[in-house]
Amino acid sequence: MLEEVDRDENAGGDASINEDIPPCQYEYLDHTADVQLHAWGSSLTEAFEQCAVAMFGYMTEIDTVDMRTTQTVEANGDDMQSLLYHFLDEWLFLFSAEPFFIARKVKILEFDAENFKIKAIGFGEEFDLAKHPQGTEVKAITYSNMQVLDSGEKPEVFVIIDI
Amino acid sequence: MLEEVDRDENAGGDASINEDIPPCQYEYLDHTADVQLHAWGSSLTEAFEQCAVAMFGYMTEIDTVDMRTTQTVEANGDDMQSLLYHFLDEWLFLFSAEPFFIARKVKILEFDAENFKIKAIGFGEEFDLAKHPQGTEVKAITYSNMQVLDSGEKPEVFVIIDI
Repeated sequence: MLEEVDRDENAGGDASINEDIPPCQYEYLDHTADVQLHAWGSSLTEAFEQCAVAMFGYMTEIDTVDMRTTQTVEANGDDMQSLLYHFLDEWLFLFSAEPFFIARKVKILEFDAENFKIKAIGFGEEFDLAKHPQGTEVKAITYSNMQVLDSGEKPEVFVIIDI
Repeated sequence: MLEEVDRDENAGGDASINEDIPPCQYEYLDHTADVQLHAWGSSLTEAFEQCAVAMFGYMTEIDTVDMRTTQTVEANGDDMQSLLYHFLDEWLFLFSAEPFFIARKVKILEFDAENFKIKAIGFGEEFDLAKHPQGTEVKAITYSNMQVLDSGEKPEVFVIIDI
């Protein structure tokens, strides 16, 4: 089925085959991509904090981010899943426009698990391509197969983000 | 809702905030991605040829590929869509294992549109990371939303590939 004709063996000094290269008559259209974040901790609070940093870690090499500035966010939800969604979305919003903030560390100051409210502070700096390697653009948080698991010794969360 | 505290303004020479960095308690799990190839030509044959090169063009910068060797493939299908699928899959197979062949140009020698058979030759060389910039891995051809359009002046094909 396959047949190899290695012109190198026949052609002496000139190894290239004499074939015209056709014009480019193709293009790349829509693409979609996602990745699943998995974060955990000794508490659900810690798992949420880690999940936010995981998201930032996909945008750049997180070790290049210095803690020079802080930003705070507040997020509300109707249940634990929407709380996580909005918590991450608030951080994504801070990154996507002014102040273009990227966090090296996120600390949740208040976690109201009854009313689904979070107040959090991030330690980081303004995103700067001269300093922070370009990672992958995060387009959106999704509810797809989202899991918030608070039972057992290791609370953990799973979030799929569109990239 | 947002509050900025820029410690730079207060901290004099030492601009960094004194915060411990927590251990990394997250990981990146499954990711999925695809891209749609769109290729066209003055004939369906040409559109198929262009589609194969479009796939190779996603794997590396196609201009770095020299035509030093040839490989031939044969593909069969039950209809035009499965013929296109198997045609691309044969080229993907030649790339993914020995002889790790990447084509700069593909020429269809026989296109039997009644029995859905193709014989084709590719002009290219062995893939070499020292020469060919690493593009994106093509994991599989898919039938998802595949279109083979042979009417009108510009036959064209659309193929989504998993990357």
